[in-house]
Amino acid sequence: MSAPLDTSTALPGRAASILERVRVRAPRVHCLMNTVAQKLVADGLSALGAIPSMTASPDEVEHFARKADALAVNLGTLDPQRREAIGLAVGVAATRKIPWVLDPAHCDYSPPRARFAQGLLERRPAALRANAAEYEMLSVPDDVVAVETGTVDHIGFGARKISVANGDPLMARVTGTGCLGGAVIAAFLAVDDDSQAAAAAAMLAFGVAAQDATRHARGPGSFEPALLDALAALDGKAIVEQARVTE
Amino acid sequence: MSAPLDTSTALPGRAASILERVRVRAPRVHCLMNTVAQKLVADGLSALGAIPSMTASPDEVEHFARKADALAVNLGTLDPQRREAIGLAVGVAATRKIPWVLDPAHCDYSPPRARFAQGLLERRPAALRANAAEYEMLSVPDDVVAVETGTVDHIGFGARKISVANGDPLMARVTGTGCLGGAVIAAFLAVDDDSQAAAAAAMLAFGVAAQDATRHARGPGSFEPALLDALAALDGKAIVEQARVTE
Amino acid sequence: MSAPLDTSTALPGRAASILERVRVRAPRVHCLMNTVAQKLVADGLSALGAIPSMTASPDEVEHFARKADALAVNLGTLDPQRREAIGLAVGVAATRKIPWVLDPAHCDYSPPRARFAQGLLERRPAALRANAAEYEMLSVPDDVVAVETGTVDHIGFGARKISVANGDPLMARVTGTGCLGGAVIAAFLAVDDDSQAAAAAAMLAFGVAAQDATRHARGPGSFEPALLDALAALDGKAIVEQARVTE
Repeated sequence: MSAPLDTSTALPGRAASILERVRVRAPRVHCLMNTVAQKLVADGLSALGAIPSMTASPDEVEHFARKADALAVNLGTLDPQRREAIGLAVGVAATRKIPWVLDPAHCDYSPPRARFAQGLLERRPAALRANAAEYEMLSVPDDVVAVETGTVDHIGFGARKISVANGDPLMARVTGTGCLGGAVIAAFLAVDDDSQAAAAAAMLAFGVAAQDATRHARGPGSFEPALLDALAALDGKAIVEQARVTE
Repeated sequence: MSAPLDTSTALPGRAASILERVRVRAPRVHCLMNTVAQKLVADGLSALGAIPSMTASPDEVEHFARKADALAVNLGTLDPQRREAIGLAVGVAATRKIPWVLDPAHCDYSPPRARFAQGLLERRPAALRANAAEYEMLSVPDDVVAVETGTVDHIGFGARKISVANGDPLMARVTGTGCLGGAVIAAFLAVDDDSQAAAAAAMLAFGVAAQDATRHARGPGSFEPALLDALAALDGKAIVEQARVTE
Repeated sequence: MSAPLDTSTALPGRAASILERVRVRAPRVHCLMNTVAQKLVADGLSALGAIPSMTASPDEVEHFARKADALAVNLGTLDPQRREAIGLAVGVAATRKIPWVLDPAHCDYSPPRARFAQGLLERRPAALRANAAEYEMLSVPDDVVAVETGTVDHIGFGARKISVANGDPLMARVTGTGCLGGAVIAAFLAVDDDSQAAAAAAMLAFGVAAQDATRHARGPGSFEPALLDALAALDGKAIVEQARVTE
């Protein structure tokens, strides 16, 4: 049984608080990110208040992972070197007990990518961010927060489900927006121990920023810089007022 | 002997029709695209109504090519892995009889790249998109549509020539605009069997979108998001009214 | 002993003159550039009036370096192939006596990257562009112009120091802006033999463009296209009027 949240408390208030912590602590998020979305993801994390890095070279990635507060692992434009770097970075995350997010981008297109994603799930990311088609390829362990994106985002962990209906259709017209969503989850996980709440708060904050951005967008092209502006300008008040959350 | 087209019929009308088909069918265009232009090309295809993918890994590219309706093969930032992936993707295109476009970007700078481009031409892309300097390095088979870009674009196939004088000088100031032009040709080829008409229609539609974009541009920086907005907003009426075509 | 410059002469006037030469001569700048910043750097160089190229493949990079008037070598997203390409390109630069700039991006995160940067410094770039944390990892030869970036940029060569206080805090919020700064130095070095003056002039021109850009920016997202517009529109008068230089 789910009921609309009192938006002055619970998730929206928590999202406001987490955003504030991101701004104050400026967590470092190391991204194993497809080459298409690297720039948008780096700019989005910077706009939010986090510190991005992007190296995917096997001989350097552990040095970067050791300085990171969270990892965002995205499987787009995967190749052997990138696969090796991901394995090494995830190893550092396990040792240092820092959270990481898996985004198995387009794993429904490519069986070897789906197998690689499944192997990573066994290494226990804090959260998996994927759409419905990608979820169909994967078996998700119970102790991983499952973020299923769509018109409404569903964030599940065991029996507890949270739904977030924020966002805008223009997001789907800009390549890399979803990848950035995964990185925002990583930044939020870096400053909050409740992985499900942090993941849901990230989707909420990101969705509200997208809604704010549409005011300055004439189409998908102008939406992208407007989204970055909105992430930089986002505050807790906007999150609480615009939240469309059910839990 | 060439005469101005009656813009209510022939190529402009056909371009309007092809654009409509792209919007309805949403063809998947897999791009072997230089790393510099990947994001712009993906965003441009999405804005137009097509569905882009960008993986260039040899062990995954065939899976993506099997789901594609057309390929855009661009030789910028070429390396051994990318060369191998291109060969594999083109093999799938031949088997599946889907069209592909070759853009031998900067092959006039690098003899090995020109040789690689020549080898690909023997495998019969539907169209070659190149500038005059690049054409000088290549011998184009008769059964490949030859798109020569410049202030005026010339689209030749055997004895039939079409010229398109749309576009704007700002296009040359934004890296990747030409690469996107090649991908737009691929999207148009995916929904029309007359390769020459489809290639010419693509250059026309893209050029009209660029002209529309200049209204919201203060320079090359703001031109880029404006171009994406214009591709998303483009309609057949604008194409027919603004077409500057000779055939 | 340093004194405020008479802004009508010396560095600002020289920067105006160098910018004019860049516009007239359109120097080719080959960039060994991290994959995140490639597009912004290419667009920034084009906006300024230079001609960028970006290939980092070992089997092609020498062909591109032989056509270049300067190199911009950036160590972000370094990998073995990119390291090899950098070595080859720097070899061509030495043979052809064209200037090159080293930006050891994030070498403070990664000891192997710092060692590689030190090895490159022994091969004598015209200029090193780095921030304070990166400088701590490196020993800079006396005959390399040392550009230390920060709120105020310091450009040192032997006993002569120049400081440039232009720029805007938004620059630090956009990934790749610093990388573009290194490439602008390369473009300026290509048309002026006084490496220290050229490097300082580049920082000045770039900083003034950034200040101009803030007028059209609502945040870091809209700042980026505005910066490109400002680089394209920049003129000597704006540089001279807004220069904040001490030498």
